[in-house]
Amino acid sequence: KINGDRLWDSLMEMAKVGPGVAGGNNRQTLTDADAEGRALFQKWCEDAGCEMGVDTMGNMFFTRPGTDGDALPVYVGSHLDTQPTGGKYDGVLGVLGALELVRTLNDLNIKTKHPIVITNWTNEEGTRFAPAMLASGVFAGIHTEDWAKDRVDIDGKRFGDELKRIGWEGDEPVGARKMKAMFELHIEQGPILETEGKDIGVVTHGQGLSWTQITVTGKDSHTGSTPMPMRKNAGLGMARILEKVDEIAWSHAPHAVGAAGHIEVFPNSRNVIPGKAVFTVDFRSPEHAVILDMEARLKAAAEEICREMGLGLEMEKVGGFDPVTFDEGCVTAIRNAAERLGYSHMNIISGAGHDACWINQVAPTAMVMCPCVDGLSHNEAEEISKDWATAGADVLLHAVVETAGI
Amino acid sequence: KINGDRLWDSLMEMAKVGPGVAGGNNRQTLTDADAEGRALFQKWCEDAGCEMGVDTMGNMFFTRPGTDGDALPVYVGSHLDTQPTGGKYDGVLGVLGALELVRTLNDLNIKTKHPIVITNWTNEEGTRFAPAMLASGVFAGIHTEDWAKDRVDIDGKRFGDELKRIGWEGDEPVGARKMKAMFELHIEQGPILETEGKDIGVVTHGQGLSWTQITVTGKDSHTGSTPMPMRKNAGLGMARILEKVDEIAWSHAPHAVGAAGHIEVFPNSRNVIPGKAVFTVDFRSPEHAVILDMEARLKAAAEEICREMGLGLEMEKVGGFDPVTFDEGCVTAIRNAAERLGYSHMNIISGAGHDACWINQVAPTAMVMCPCVDGLSHNEAEEISKDWATAGADVLLHAVVETAGI
Ligand SMILES: NC(=O)NCCC(=O)O
Ligand SMILES: NC(=O)NCCC(=O)O
Repeated sequence: KINGDRLWDSLMEMAKVGPGVAGGNNRQTLTDADAEGRALFQKWCEDAGCEMGVDTMGNMFFTRPGTDGDALPVYVGSHLDTQPTGGKYDGVLGVLGALELVRTLNDLNIKTKHPIVITNWTNEEGTRFAPAMLASGVFAGIHTEDWAKDRVDIDGKRFGDELKRIGWEGDEPVGARKMKAMFELHIEQGPILETEGKDIGVVTHGQGLSWTQITVTGKDSHTGSTPMPMRKNAGLGMARILEKVDEIAWSHAPHAVGAAGHIEVFPNSRNVIPGKAVFTVDFRSPEHAVILDMEARLKAAAEEICREMGLGLEMEKVGGFDPVTFDEGCVTAIRNAAERLGYSHMNIISGAGHDACWINQVAPTAMVMCPCVDGLSHNEAEEISKDWATAGADVLLHAVVETAGI
Repeated sequence: KINGDRLWDSLMEMAKVGPGVAGGNNRQTLTDADAEGRALFQKWCEDAGCEMGVDTMGNMFFTRPGTDGDALPVYVGSHLDTQPTGGKYDGVLGVLGALELVRTLNDLNIKTKHPIVITNWTNEEGTRFAPAMLASGVFAGIHTEDWAKDRVDIDGKRFGDELKRIGWEGDEPVGARKMKAMFELHIEQGPILETEGKDIGVVTHGQGLSWTQITVTGKDSHTGSTPMPMRKNAGLGMARILEKVDEIAWSHAPHAVGAAGHIEVFPNSRNVIPGKAVFTVDFRSPEHAVILDMEARLKAAAEEICREMGLGLEMEKVGGFDPVTFDEGCVTAIRNAAERLGYSHMNIISGAGHDACWINQVAPTAMVMCPCVDGLSHNEAEEISKDWATAGADVLLHAVVETAGI
């Protein structure tokens, strides 16, 4: 069993880096706070006897050697970046849970056959630079590195430049590492485990995602002196599309969700009819066909609304992945671990995207989930109990050790 | 008659200060560009032999003495600040038209009985600091100076601090000046004069305005893992209210208009359901009862939408004025001037708010309007012809001289 107090202390220590405004964190990717969090994590991993490698996307790897020099390592980790108003556990639990299992193996003087590599993936959240899970996506060959490095934030800053600026562009080629398996512990970010009273979610599948950035173009003009029939109100066009997004998602509920988190109008002045609106629609479903249907209906609805209103329309897919089925062997290792440790558990589909979803394409992969209070995440008030964190890390420890062999 | 070429040259010269991104201007109030524009205007007015006074709200007054030492001055002017993506004429034509009429009187060596005071009112646009016409409002006793100076922009900067920072806080008490009359020349910002083929609009009335800032509060949460029934999507609540704003305005068209130009969601991240949306509804009508009706229906609709969706709601009136009836004597002076000069003219109701609307409460006031291409304003592509500008300034000259006496 891992040391729950030590894990919790590390979580609270990391939460001091890039504090939010309401008890959570704002440690967005490739900010100074991200660099500070990385340095703290590096120190902890090196104190635990691991050796660092960093690839050219800034992904961090800390190796605890195995007894068999040639054996492929078992990877375990998640991400340290957060939302602008994020919680203390989303991602961080998976990284520090991995560190805790290595510390525990050190305490118990247990050596595994396969090396164990603690990992922090760059830009999982996708807030500052879309899409989410960007660097694990490059690792898995989904995106090219050049394309990824050209992503820009809202101020026009390039991912590649910001990675250099914070000093975390490594020299390892991305994706060169081969893995025996990869495990990720994460908070559920939804209400199911808490409602069902289970300690552990054995993640068998992940929902697919589709992000469409929509630009509606009208004509800036005066809110007072432009007669109603002459208006080309891009903000109103956006409002009508947002209503459709909700309607489309509900039509597939509970097998789909949909919303827009990112919304901007231009020039954003009280007395100017918006000449442009830019927003991103987020649709998800565990069923690929449902995602395709929602995308098609969104396109049709947006086209009809803009045609009727005389507005311009551009739609660009800025992120997405297909529904995921995790590796049966890894899933079984997690279920066995929960069973052996006496934790209550259930199968679960991940509602969110995770680095494990991409790594699953290049290595046997699975995830462990623990509950979070009221299913709340991407909110500074995100909360978990020390017991839940401990149970999750215990299961992670057992699944990893079973896979790495003793 | 004024010198149309000289007026046009000055307009083009001023347009170089705080250029926009698409041929117009971004010379928002109390920015460095505003300070630069003020300095250029000061130089021009002093070159024309006028003496400067600046009040503690930054309003600028340049006096051309009259022959009767005790006579109250005739004020004439508008504003030099622009929208973030504004045109070259909105406000500027009225200020430089006033300067041009003084230059013309100098050329012709005409002395008036009453002094003439060229005026630039601070923060007419109300984009950076709501409400619009802020400093003329303080002058007219509508707002207290302390309240006005406490207005903050989107970055939390105070009006009072920014006025000091750009070096244009004067020492005259605001509103101490007494006026014989005040005239303002402005582009129409709507399509009526152009459509009717008239050179001059004799502004008899102004629409009333109501700005309501609405804050809808939901709960930030994950767009992927939060089930549809658990969502409190403030962005969706906003979208539904925006649809109602349009419906309410149309129900009174053509006697009302309505839209929201300012829209923000928080935390504005692609994978976070917006926990907060803040936007400002702009309703206008020449009829006071219509404005009251629209405000009441907006309140009822927003309350119903938020109640049904379990969202929080706050509504704050952040700007407004009642419909305006301009002074009969001043209006007649304008109509007579147009008639005498042989310009085609018609009565018109101003669709936009103007400094003249507030000054009308403390002095006899009226406005001259000239057409603008396609009725387009609050857009960098705002355009007028030199002939239209010349006609407007000619009428201004005659109305002012008739009122100031020779
Ligand atoms: N786990 C998580 O919040 N990942 C961000 C990507 C997503 O939006 O699902
Ligand atoms: N003239 C003008 O655009 N004034 C700004 C105030 C308003 O929104 O009407």
